[in-house]
Amino acid sequence: MNIERRPRVGHIAFLNCLPIYWGLVRSGALLDVDLHRAPPDELGNRLVAGDLDLGPISLVEYLRHADDLLLIPDIAVAADGPVLSVNLVSKTPLADLPASPKIALTSSSRTGVLLGRMILEQRYGRTPEYATSGTDMDSALADADAAVLIGDEALRAYHEPRGNHVLDLAAEWRDWTGLPMVFAVWAVRRDYAESHPGLVKDVHVAFCDSVRRCREEIDDVVASAARWEPFEPEALAEYFNRLQFTLSERHLAGLREFATRAAGYTEVVPLPKDGPEFFPAGEGMIAGEGQE
Amino acid sequence: MNIERRPRVGHIAFLNCLPIYWGLVRSGALLDVDLHRAPPDELGNRLVAGDLDLGPISLVEYLRHADDLLLIPDIAVAADGPVLSVNLVSKTPLADLPASPKIALTSSSRTGVLLGRMILEQRYGRTPEYATSGTDMDSALADADAAVLIGDEALRAYHEPRGNHVLDLAAEWRDWTGLPMVFAVWAVRRDYAESHPGLVKDVHVAFCDSVRRCREEIDDVVASAARWEPFEPEALAEYFNRLQFTLSERHLAGLREFATRAAGYTEVVPLPKDGPEFFPAGEGMIAGEGQE
Repeated sequence: MNIERRPRVGHIAFLNCLPIYWGLVRSGALLDVDLHRAPPDELGNRLVAGDLDLGPISLVEYLRHADDLLLIPDIAVAADGPVLSVNLVSKTPLADLPASPKIALTSSSRTGVLLGRMILEQRYGRTPEYATSGTDMDSALADADAAVLIGDEALRAYHEPRGNHVLDLAAEWRDWTGLPMVFAVWAVRRDYAESHPGLVKDVHVAFCDSVRRCREEIDDVVASAARWEPFEPEALAEYFNRLQFTLSERHLAGLREFATRAAGYTEVVPLPKDGPEFFPAGEGMIAGEGQE
Repeated sequence: MNIERRPRVGHIAFLNCLPIYWGLVRSGALLDVDLHRAPPDELGNRLVAGDLDLGPISLVEYLRHADDLLLIPDIAVAADGPVLSVNLVSKTPLADLPASPKIALTSSSRTGVLLGRMILEQRYGRTPEYATSGTDMDSALADADAAVLIGDEALRAYHEPRGNHVLDLAAEWRDWTGLPMVFAVWAVRRDYAESHPGLVKDVHVAFCDSVRRCREEIDDVVASAARWEPFEPEALAEYFNRLQFTLSERHLAGLREFATRAAGYTEVVPLPKDGPEFFPAGEGMIAGEGQE
């Protein structure tokens, strides 16, 4: 008689992670996890608090809590160039922004917001004043020179800028560093990994299978998403194509570069020299995707 | 471009509804609903509050709020005889219980608890004193003559009574009335059914397909459950075989009989004479199952 319980696994309940959910459903792997769907901030908090065993966590949150966590190999939410859904939207071209622009922050996504700050401050030498605002483009720009939009609203702004200028922050990161931008990683609590290594390996395999499956069946993923999501099928196909769910060596270099450049910001703890520390899952399952 | 959102559907996150979840995963129907897994009480409250559009609701809760709800045809959680997981557990045989026994109530399941009260009071003429207690058999019986156990703990008591007497309350109901006991029904908010009849039909079909699929593939359901649930495969197979997910005419007669016999209890509102009122979904999808 079994005494194990299903691992408590987080899932980002946003459009960007729909392909991964699709794969977990279609493979049936969902039946072997206790999946908790929530926004990324909530998932990160719950993983750190020990209410979840394993799951996605925003890169910035991972860097704050790396002591308690091990990275799961091979999977991430990333982009090697434009990601379409993490944008700086401004009324004027970037070059015309004042030295101390007013920047509206519309999201609680720490990684996307910090990426926007780094690009504005380190790459373009601005010293912005930041203020939080409503999530839609119009209210964000009402009292600001520019706004960091993330998620559906950012994707909508990319397709319908309505006269505004849209700067893709993952594309900016790539131009600036030559590397992919990693927005979220998968991590397991160190104590859970030590007590349940077999279950963590199973979940790792399930997620790698899910990513492989959603790539193989991407037309079906798009058709399924287009039934419910407020975007045209072509827009969804382009978006899912831009998104990478891979943590290759190149992505790891991008992750380390982000940790280095973000080290001056109070919320980030530097990685150890040989970090990040991985859960020992054996050979990479989907190496190759997202590499050039 | 789509402007609909996925229907917000409840799912009972207990072992008794695992076969239905299994079917929703295997068919992929899960991708077209926004499924919220929670204990039955929470689901009922959220359906009544309008935080869910559709889903399972305890029969007693349905009877309290039938004005705002329409029944979904064909599906239920029921038993036509023993259900194994809704039990009155007593230290002595039932006949030896005093006229005013102390009864521990271990669950917030209103239907199971009310069934226990009706059997004790109406069928066996006792006038119990009730008190809530911890959920496990030992602490429930510590200060009581008997306890109403529901769910995993009740199923465990059935398999390991440890000298106690276990009375299956669904079997008692069947002996008493000649009818099946309906523990939960599926209902849709009346306003949602009027504004989204096509989506409700789709969900109805998906649940009927799920029930049919889990019956066809019951060996796989048992094998999947046995990996994680604290019961032997044989016990799980017996349990899933006793459970019915059907709302046939016979089950409806049982539902109406329960409403009639429960009418003296303050928490239940009598059904209208031609009730319950159904969502008009057309022909029954799985008629036949559970009928004699």
